[in-house]
Amino acid sequence: MGEHVISRFGHVELEDMPSDLRDRVAAVADRSGFVPNVLLALARRPRELRAFLDYHDALMDPEGPGGAPQAGPALSKAERELIVVATSAANHCTYCVVAHGAILRVRTKDPEIADRVSTNPYAVELNRRERAIVDLALLIAADSAALTEAELDDARAAGLTEDEIWDVGAITALFALSNRMAHLTALRPNPEFFLMGRLPR
Amino acid sequence: MGEHVISRFGHVELEDMPSDLRDRVAAVADRSGFVPNVLLALARRPRELRAFLDYHDALMDPEGPGGAPQAGPALSKAERELIVVATSAANHCTYCVVAHGAILRVRTKDPEIADRVSTNPYAVELNRRERAIVDLALLIAADSAALTEAELDDARAAGLTEDEIWDVGAITALFALSNRMAHLTALRPNPEFFLMGRLPR
Amino acid sequence: MGEHVISRFGHVELEDMPSDLRDRVAAVADRSGFVPNVLLALARRPRELRAFLDYHDALMDPEGPGGAPQAGPALSKAERELIVVATSAANHCTYCVVAHGAILRVRTKDPEIADRVSTNPYAVELNRRERAIVDLALLIAADSAALTEAELDDARAAGLTEDEIWDVGAITALFALSNRMAHLTALRPNPEFFLMGRLPR
Amino acid sequence: MGEHVISRFGHVELEDMPSDLRDRVAAVADRSGFVPNVLLALARRPRELRAFLDYHDALMDPEGPGGAPQAGPALSKAERELIVVATSAANHCTYCVVAHGAILRVRTKDPEIADRVSTNPYAVELNRRERAIVDLALLIAADSAALTEAELDDARAAGLTEDEIWDVGAITALFALSNRMAHLTALRPNPEFFLMGRLPR
Amino acid sequence: MGEHVISRFGHVELEDMPSDLRDRVAAVADRSGFVPNVLLALARRPRELRAFLDYHDALMDPEGPGGAPQAGPALSKAERELIVVATSAANHCTYCVVAHGAILRVRTKDPEIADRVSTNPYAVELNRRERAIVDLALLIAADSAALTEAELDDARAAGLTEDEIWDVGAITALFALSNRMAHLTALRPNPEFFLMGRLPR
Amino acid sequence: MGEHVISRFGHVELEDMPSDLRDRVAAVADRSGFVPNVLLALARRPRELRAFLDYHDALMDPEGPGGAPQAGPALSKAERELIVVATSAANHCTYCVVAHGAILRVRTKDPEIADRVSTNPYAVELNRRERAIVDLALLIAADSAALTEAELDDARAAGLTEDEIWDVGAITALFALSNRMAHLTALRPNPEFFLMGRLPR
Repeated sequence: MGEHVISRFGHVELEDMPSDLRDRVAAVADRSGFVPNVLLALARRPRELRAFLDYHDALMDPEGPGGAPQAGPALSKAERELIVVATSAANHCTYCVVAHGAILRVRTKDPEIADRVSTNPYAVELNRRERAIVDLALLIAADSAALTEAELDDARAAGLTEDEIWDVGAITALFALSNRMAHLTALRPNPEFFLMGRLPR
Repeated sequence: MGEHVISRFGHVELEDMPSDLRDRVAAVADRSGFVPNVLLALARRPRELRAFLDYHDALMDPEGPGGAPQAGPALSKAERELIVVATSAANHCTYCVVAHGAILRVRTKDPEIADRVSTNPYAVELNRRERAIVDLALLIAADSAALTEAELDDARAAGLTEDEIWDVGAITALFALSNRMAHLTALRPNPEFFLMGRLPR
Repeated sequence: MGEHVISRFGHVELEDMPSDLRDRVAAVADRSGFVPNVLLALARRPRELRAFLDYHDALMDPEGPGGAPQAGPALSKAERELIVVATSAANHCTYCVVAHGAILRVRTKDPEIADRVSTNPYAVELNRRERAIVDLALLIAADSAALTEAELDDARAAGLTEDEIWDVGAITALFALSNRMAHLTALRPNPEFFLMGRLPR
Repeated sequence: MGEHVISRFGHVELEDMPSDLRDRVAAVADRSGFVPNVLLALARRPRELRAFLDYHDALMDPEGPGGAPQAGPALSKAERELIVVATSAANHCTYCVVAHGAILRVRTKDPEIADRVSTNPYAVELNRRERAIVDLALLIAADSAALTEAELDDARAAGLTEDEIWDVGAITALFALSNRMAHLTALRPNPEFFLMGRLPR
Repeated sequence: MGEHVISRFGHVELEDMPSDLRDRVAAVADRSGFVPNVLLALARRPRELRAFLDYHDALMDPEGPGGAPQAGPALSKAERELIVVATSAANHCTYCVVAHGAILRVRTKDPEIADRVSTNPYAVELNRRERAIVDLALLIAADSAALTEAELDDARAAGLTEDEIWDVGAITALFALSNRMAHLTALRPNPEFFLMGRLPR
Repeated sequence: MGEHVISRFGHVELEDMPSDLRDRVAAVADRSGFVPNVLLALARRPRELRAFLDYHDALMDPEGPGGAPQAGPALSKAERELIVVATSAANHCTYCVVAHGAILRVRTKDPEIADRVSTNPYAVELNRRERAIVDLALLIAADSAALTEAELDDARAAGLTEDEIWDVGAITALFALSNRMAHLTALRPNPEFFLMGRLPR
């Protein structure tokens, strides 16, 4: 077993972060009950962590702090997490699968969904809209150069709007980045994530 | 979500199985607290299920009923399950990852090991012996035609005996079969497996 | 050239096998005129060989000893061998291609079929039913996680029944195991197989 | 030929951007002589564009506006562009190869380097340090799950520091995102990029 | 940077070639303004170079010296170069992409086409006929064993005649050879190719 | 089964060929006892067939008609056929595997070698020199862009000269062409090839 607990490149404790990041990360910790390791690991580079958080919030919590109500139909929070779990599984990213699998269980109240999606995102049984979302996300994750209007038309036929298609692509793109940073830093999931959302409440 | 609960091809209830299989499956249910779905699904073909159970017991429980104490060093039960989880994850087999992931957690008393192995069997941190076992198993699972003495020598250098190497290969081979049957039948894991071994006892 | 003649792990001569296996293997030798090397190599582990033979007979010779006449339509013996040759070729398994290629030639009385299937299972010209069988088998051999109802519907449209689809999948699964055991043991085909079925009788 | 000029999802003209983005993009245009299409296309989502620009500046121009002199050795600007061209080529991203290929030619004053790197990043002749940078970047771009200490040790042996390794990984990760956004939006390179840096000055 | 200028195996200067080859290569140089490096490198084996030139002329310049007007519809010279650039890009052949990219720019008078095709041949926007040509060529370049009547029917539906389909396949086949010889010899493109066809005339 | 006997694009009978080709093909037929189908199929394009025959003779029979004794060490004829069988098998080319497998059996007087090489060229047991030849050939066949001095040094370490390395690469390149033409034309092997070299003489 490796000796590191959080990241191959070390990490920055909350109290050692610049004050703007400390406040922001503390707010996450208040909601979650703990500080997700990704924030401690990326804090080694404050400029990068700020950009990562901004990008993350814009895509994963668009109506949250700094955001505004979205006009028209939009992906649900559970659908956003579904994209993250499916594409992170395709990329074999343990941190993102475990952490966002936990959030997906919480959002869907389904204790099995994350394991079913992550072990076989390619053929897991989903409803038509979810299947279209995941199919598009997997293509963009694995071979975005092959994307043509034909695949977008498939997504449109399943009811996705242009803005929803952008969201699918952009979330997949952000976690293409995130998965690679997790692998670069050999990021370990917090122990809390493994059990979260598995027990009836 | 799909309409089937257990298998795409239906299943056979315990009471409808031939008596020898009924006894044998009942014994499994006694130990587990429930009948693993794979047995209900494969019971559609009693001859095949008998052979499957025989093969499984010979490799996964060699000292159990019908077996005998092994001479010399042998893979531990946890190591056998590690092979199953790693190769089934490489094959994206939900049933086998969830069911044997549960057993791996129970055998190791480590609530994180199954998720860490299944999300990235290729680079999960393991000790040297475990890493050698998993590397050999993954090669045999994905591209056994490429196996040469060089890879076996790597396994030997990590301390594996000839019999242990056979076990790694044979367990991988059996689950190459098992993963494909699970995909053929669209086999669903029993709900009990998802939580098993995750809570401290 | 390698020094071993049969298997990397040695083998067991007929007279040194447990008596039940000796009788069973002798019966095969009586029909074939020689003992197929796979049986000598796997006899190193009698429990595994028994299970292998049971599984093999259930799928490759369902109406033979221990079996019963099948109800309804069923794959012909030649079709069963076709699956073995095609998937073993995709897996680059010399033993299985050479041995079952011989049987395929005998069953079809076509001296070219085995070489044509094994050099390019993906596009060899076959009739529609055979093509559907081979396409389904190749998918299950190479990427069973991608199997969905759509591919099964293709098979059904070519006339395959549910039981025949199961047979295609189960035979492919068994030889996924068998190919890996042949590679693990570096199994060499018996010289007799190379010429069998190539000369007009 | 497609009808769109800039992006499949339309674009936002400079004068229609929020004022902070307008100022920022105008500054880029002042330096380049034109507005890179990626900024017009991503401006459809101001929050995402702000985060993208922040991430980009932190990694590609760390001593520029908003940055500070780096302590210790650091990747040169040309090396950073080399990573972008190599990984974007591996991802078949026309926009990023053409745009950053132009910048790489300008930075290196070598009119051939971009075409040589982009047509075959895997074996283009480079000096040892550059080769180590590109090898690490390509692994993280294509299969980051396979990254282990062994590959990092190769990079260290070629003289890369921990911070430089982070930079290689983080730049690769950012363009994993960027390449996917370019493919999602079917982004067309500005005509100016194709010739930039090809003529002696 | 490597020390060789033209080829890993050395080269033969024009004046040292057998007289028939000297005349033939000199004629190419007269048209181009320089001797393409591929001819200097392959001249190490005069018999092979003669065959290469004959094959090349038959397919790339069928109405040129030694040829005759073609009966019926035929691929244009630009379409022939398009095939070379697309398949050589798929094969990561720097020499062929740079040299034939230059010719493609000259033939089409489009300074962007070669970079757009070579960075992403799989999804570059083309008209229907060109797309059909490139799709067929890429399949034959990468996985010709998978070619069936279905793919030929797609080409026919886009208007390609049997002779044009042969040309697509044969040009792809010739550059499968050529790309491999360029990689074998580590062939460097002449500096003149990089800029050719990029400036308005 | 397909309706065509020789080629998807028809063929040209010996008596309908231009006289130079008729003489040349007749000479082949005299040696073989039959006209190999590849010559009938390619005769549809006489210029291409002439170039093909020239290239083939230069590489496969360098001391034959039109050639001269080679200076220094050279690949044996059997080694040249070994390259063809191994790379054609990797490319799933039925015609080339069956036809050149026959010649390989004749050259080596080994009735098993062709089937063993073609079913698993990646790990077939060969002596060190043969293994080095096949490894280099397979790399050039499948991914020549990855070829670096490191792989050539491996070949040199196994005793191959620069000229022999060129031969390995050039033969592989020629059959990269040939395999693709066989797939394009759906070329069927002559029945005679299947049995040739299998019976003791």
